[in-house]
Amino acid sequence: MPRVTFAPDGTAADVDPGKSVHQAAMQAGVSLVASCGGKGRCGTCRIEVLSGDVPPPTAAEKSLLDDDELAAGMRLACELRPTADLEVRVPPSSRASFTEILAHGECVTFPLGAGVSVRRVSVDEPTLEHPVPDLQRLAVAVGIEDPAAEPGALRALPAVLRASGRRVTALARDGRLLAVRPGDAALPVFGAAFDIGTTTVAGALIDLTSGTCVATANRTNPQQTRGDDVISRMDHAAKGAEQLHELQSLVAGAIDEMLAEMSAERNASPGDIYEIIVAGNSVMTHLFLGLPPQAMAVVPFAPVTTRAVEVAPRDVSLNASPAARVRTVPLASAYVGGDIVAGALAVGFPGLEDETLFIDIGTNGEVVVGSGERAVCAATAAGPAFEGAGISCGMRAVPGAITHASLRNGGLQLDVMADAAPAGLCGTGLVDIVAVLVRTGVIDETGLFDASSDGPLASRLRETDDGLEFVVASEECDVVLTQRDIRELQLAKGAIAAGATVLMSNIGLAPSDLSHVMLAGAFGSTIDPASAVDIGLLPRGIDPKRVVAVGNTAAAGARAALCSRVARDQADHIARWMRAVELSTQPDFQMQFAEAMMFPPPATR
Amino acid sequence: MPRVTFAPDGTAADVDPGKSVHQAAMQAGVSLVASCGGKGRCGTCRIEVLSGDVPPPTAAEKSLLDDDELAAGMRLACELRPTADLEVRVPPSSRASFTEILAHGECVTFPLGAGVSVRRVSVDEPTLEHPVPDLQRLAVAVGIEDPAAEPGALRALPAVLRASGRRVTALARDGRLLAVRPGDAALPVFGAAFDIGTTTVAGALIDLTSGTCVATANRTNPQQTRGDDVISRMDHAAKGAEQLHELQSLVAGAIDEMLAEMSAERNASPGDIYEIIVAGNSVMTHLFLGLPPQAMAVVPFAPVTTRAVEVAPRDVSLNASPAARVRTVPLASAYVGGDIVAGALAVGFPGLEDETLFIDIGTNGEVVVGSGERAVCAATAAGPAFEGAGISCGMRAVPGAITHASLRNGGLQLDVMADAAPAGLCGTGLVDIVAVLVRTGVIDETGLFDASSDGPLASRLRETDDGLEFVVASEECDVVLTQRDIRELQLAKGAIAAGATVLMSNIGLAPSDLSHVMLAGAFGSTIDPASAVDIGLLPRGIDPKRVVAVGNTAAAGARAALCSRVARDQADHIARWMRAVELSTQPDFQMQFAEAMMFPPPATR
Repeated sequence: MPRVTFAPDGTAADVDPGKSVHQAAMQAGVSLVASCGGKGRCGTCRIEVLSGDVPPPTAAEKSLLDDDELAAGMRLACELRPTADLEVRVPPSSRASFTEILAHGECVTFPLGAGVSVRRVSVDEPTLEHPVPDLQRLAVAVGIEDPAAEPGALRALPAVLRASGRRVTALARDGRLLAVRPGDAALPVFGAAFDIGTTTVAGALIDLTSGTCVATANRTNPQQTRGDDVISRMDHAAKGAEQLHELQSLVAGAIDEMLAEMSAERNASPGDIYEIIVAGNSVMTHLFLGLPPQAMAVVPFAPVTTRAVEVAPRDVSLNASPAARVRTVPLASAYVGGDIVAGALAVGFPGLEDETLFIDIGTNGEVVVGSGERAVCAATAAGPAFEGAGISCGMRAVPGAITHASLRNGGLQLDVMADAAPAGLCGTGLVDIVAVLVRTGVIDETGLFDASSDGPLASRLRETDDGLEFVVASEECDVVLTQRDIRELQLAKGAIAAGATVLMSNIGLAPSDLSHVMLAGAFGSTIDPASAVDIGLLPRGIDPKRVVAVGNTAAAGARAALCSRVARDQADHIARWMRAVELSTQPDFQMQFAEAMMFPPPATR
Repeated sequence: MPRVTFAPDGTAADVDPGKSVHQAAMQAGVSLVASCGGKGRCGTCRIEVLSGDVPPPTAAEKSLLDDDELAAGMRLACELRPTADLEVRVPPSSRASFTEILAHGECVTFPLGAGVSVRRVSVDEPTLEHPVPDLQRLAVAVGIEDPAAEPGALRALPAVLRASGRRVTALARDGRLLAVRPGDAALPVFGAAFDIGTTTVAGALIDLTSGTCVATANRTNPQQTRGDDVISRMDHAAKGAEQLHELQSLVAGAIDEMLAEMSAERNASPGDIYEIIVAGNSVMTHLFLGLPPQAMAVVPFAPVTTRAVEVAPRDVSLNASPAARVRTVPLASAYVGGDIVAGALAVGFPGLEDETLFIDIGTNGEVVVGSGERAVCAATAAGPAFEGAGISCGMRAVPGAITHASLRNGGLQLDVMADAAPAGLCGTGLVDIVAVLVRTGVIDETGLFDASSDGPLASRLRETDDGLEFVVASEECDVVLTQRDIRELQLAKGAIAAGATVLMSNIGLAPSDLSHVMLAGAFGSTIDPASAVDIGLLPRGIDPKRVVAVGNTAAAGARAALCSRVARDQADHIARWMRAVELSTQPDFQMQFAEAMMFPPPATR
C-alpha cells in the first residue's frame, strides 16, 4: 500500500490503491479543507507534492490549477490517487479552520483543532521475535512515540485488535489513546459548549472533527428557584455547603440533560463527548464548579480563581466520556466573567486594529473598550429593566410583548411579538417607546413627563393617583409607561453609559475615536441602534452608524474555544490581558452616572 | 519577618524571629538532611550563605565546621537564625535522599522527591485595588507561577484562607494545589507501595516528605480462590468481562483494605494518600489494571502494554485522595514483570559497573544478567517446588517446616521453624537436604537414589511400593524425600540454571565474569548459597562467595519508585533497556535445560 506522509509533522497513512490523498488525510487525521466534499469541483484541497512519483494531473486538476501551480507541484488532494509512497505538504490555505460567524456577518477565524484526532490504521501483528505489546503496536501505527491511554480504551484494546483483522479506528489526544473501535468504524467525536446565564443555559453540540454545530439545546437555569439574580444566588450559597452543593447540582443537572438530549439527537451518547467548555459570568462559573462565590459579594470582591479550571466530568457531576475534559472560560474579575472573555474572543480581541467599544447587555451591562494595544473592562449594575423586569407593564420577549416602536404619521407604530394583542413591554420596546417620547418632547431631559408638551403623542398622557402615565396601547389590556418605569430605565442606561465613558477616559479615548460599537446579548442584539443613541444608553457623540449588533458572543466564543486550541489559549490571554476596573473606585464614576441618567438635550439629537 | 530564599529554585519562606534556616526549609518544603533532627549535633545540614547579613557562627557551628568552610560562607541550617533576608544554597550533600537498604547491607540511593511538597505560608489579603483571587494569592505565597488546583482543594480554599488569619498549609505537586488546611496544620502526606505477588500482596505506607516507611501490611492475594498460578488466573480472566472484573475487584479490595489499615495505624485516612505505586508480575499488573491478560498465555505472548500506566484511584476502585495517582511499575515483557523491573532498580541496574546475575525465585525464576552496559532478562518456568508445593512432604515456611539442613558429625542436623517437631520441607530445607545427599553420594549425578552408596546417611533410604525414599525425620510424623520429589527439584533448578546460562551466553559472559550473584525473593533470600551451588541451581563455575541474598527487591524497588521521581524514571528506562529474551526461542535452551537437570559431578564440588 502506498504511504502518504504529511509534512511537516510527519503524520502518515497507508492507503489502499485507488484512494486519494484526501482520503489519506482523513485517515491520518490531518485537517484539510474540501469545500465540495472531495469531488474535484472546488479546488480548496490544494496540496504540494514534496517527493514521490505521482500520476499525471486529472482533467479536474488541470481546470482548477494553473500551469505555474502544477509546475510547482501543487495538486488537488481529492484527485491525486497515489501509486507509490508520497510526501506532501498541506499549505495553510488548505488547512481546515473554525469560523464563528457573528450576527452582524463578520467572522473571526481560528485554526480548527481541539487536539483530538480520529485515525483509521492497520496495526502490525506481534511475532514471537517481536512480541510488541498491543498499545505500543497501535502507537507505531498512529505515529505516537510515547503512548498513554485511558483505562477504558486500554481495557478494550486487545479485543478490538483481535476482532478486526488488526484494522482499528483510534481516537487520541496529546499522545493519549481515548477510544478504539474495530475496523473502519464510525467514531463520533463531539464537544459541547455551554453559555450559563443567570436566567438561561444554552448549549451546542459540535462535531470536533469539522467544527460543525450539530445540535443545540436550551434550559431555564434551574437555580432560578433559589433566586433571580447573582446576588441572591450568592446569598443562598453562603448559607452552607449543602446550599452550594444544591446550586451546583441544579445547573449540572440541566447541562447533563442537554448533553443527553443533544447527543441523542445525533444518535450518539454522552460517552461520545470528549470536550466540554463552559462560559458564564463569574458567579455562574463559580457555582458550576462548586466554588463558594460569596467573597465576590463583598469588598474587595475576590474570586476563588479567575483562571480556566479543567476538571473531569465526574468532578462536576456530568456524564460524558470518562476521557472528557471539562474546562471553564477564564474570568477577568469578580464581575467580568467568562461570558465576557468569550465575547471579547469572538469579536476579535486582542487582535483588533481599531478602537472598539463592546457592550454585552443582560442583567448587568459588561463593557470592554480598547484595541489590540490594550483594553479595559468593567461591569455596570444595569439592573433587570432591559429584560422587562421591574417595569410596571414589563415582560420578557414572548408573544404579546411590544418589541419595537416608532413614530409614523404622527402615531405610534408598534411591533408585537407573534402579532398578538399588545400585552406589555420587553426591553427593546421600552427603549424604543422612551426614545420616541424623548424625541417628541413628551419626556424632558431629566426624564419627567412634560404634560405641557405639544408633541403628537402628548394626548396619551393621563393622570393617575401615582402621577402621570403614558398609555402605550389599550387593546385587550392597558399597556402603560409610568414615571417610575422611566426612572428604572434611566438608572439602567445611565449605569452602562457612565461605565463606558469612565472606561474610555481611563485609557484616553473619546467617543469619536471609536471605529466600532458592538452590542451583544439577547437585548443588545435586537435593540434599535438609533434608539440606543437617542436615550443615551451609549455615551454621547457616538455615531449610530458605527453601532452593530453582534448576537450571543458568549456562546460564539465558547464554541471557538471548544474547537480551537488557539482560541482557547487566546481566551486565557484575554482574561489576563484585559484590565478589569472596579467602577466604584473610579473618582469620576458617580458624577458621570448622575449625568448619564439624563436624556440627551435636543441639540445633540 | 526575614525571608529565606533557597537557591537555585528560588523557593522562599518568611520566618518568625528566632527560627532557624532549617525550620525555614521545612516551611518552604525544601529537602534538607538533618540527621540529629536539627539539634546542632551532626553537622549534616550544611548550607552556603549566598547573600544577606548573618549573625556570627554559634559554638556548635565552630565545632562542626572548619575555618575554611566558615570562611566560604558554610553554616549549619539548624543553628543559623536569620535576622535579615537571606539567600542560601543547599549543597547536594545536604539534600535529603531516599535510601533503600537491601537485605545484604548494600544500599542504592536515589534523591528523595515524589514531587509533592507541603508548604506553610502566609497569604496576602486582597484589596479593592488588587482583588487578586484566592488561588492566585496562594500561588504567589507558595511560588507557583501558573497555578492549577484539584477541585476539592479549590472548593476548600476560600474558607481555609478566611479561617486562619491568612496562614495556610498547602500541599502541591507540579504546580497543582492538592490540599489546603488552615494555619500551620499537620498535613500528612503518605504514599503507598504494593508488591502484588501471585500468592501474597505486600504493602508499605511511606511518609513522602521523609521517605520513611511508617506502616506495613500483608494479605493473601484473594485471587487465589480463582486459581493458584498465573496460568489459571489468565484462564479465568479469559472466560469473560465479568470474570476479569472479578479478579480486578479481588486484588483491589485487598489493597483497599491495606490502605485503610495502614493509614488508620498512623491516625490518618486513605484520603491522606497521594501516590500509590504497584509492582507485580505481568499477569498481576494486567489484572490489577483490569486489562485482559490472556494474550500473554499464547504465542506470541503479547501484553496489552508494558509501559507504566497511571490512573486515578477510582479507575481501579481504590479509595485514596481524589488527587492521588496510581502508577504501575513498567514491565519488560509478558514474563518479566514490574516486580523484576523494580528488583533490577533496587539492586542498582542500570548503573552497575560489574557484571551481575540477579535471580528472583518465586513460582517462576526470573533472571537478569548484565551490567551498566547492557542486560538481558528472561523468566524460567521453575514451578512451585521452591515454595514447597508438589513435593510429597512439602510445605510453606510455617512452624514445623524444615528450613535448613546440614551434615554434622555424620548425622543430619535440621533447623525447624519455631523449634517445632519436623512436619515437612519448605523450599530451602528441600534444597539443603538434596545438597547434603548429593555431596554424600546418596543421590547420584542423574538424580537417582544410589542404594549402594556407603555415605553416612545411606541407611536412611528405605524401599516402598513406589521405589526408594529417604527418611528426613520421623518424630511426630515421617518426613520423607521421594525420587519424584528429586525430579521436581531437578526440573525447577534446571530451568533456572539453564535460563541463566543461556542468557549469559546470549551476551557473551562466562560464570567467571560475574562479580555478583544476587538471589531475591522469600526463597532466594533464605537459601544457603553453598547449597544453591552444590545442587546446580546456579550455573556451574560460580564462586559461592560471590552469591548474596538481597531480600524482597520488588518491594524495595517499588518503595524507591514511590519516593523518588529519579527512581521512577530509572524504572521506566530499565523496562525498555533490558532486553527480554524468550527462552523457548533460543536454540540451545533445551540442551542446556537437559544438562542443568543433572547434579554437578563430584569433581566440580
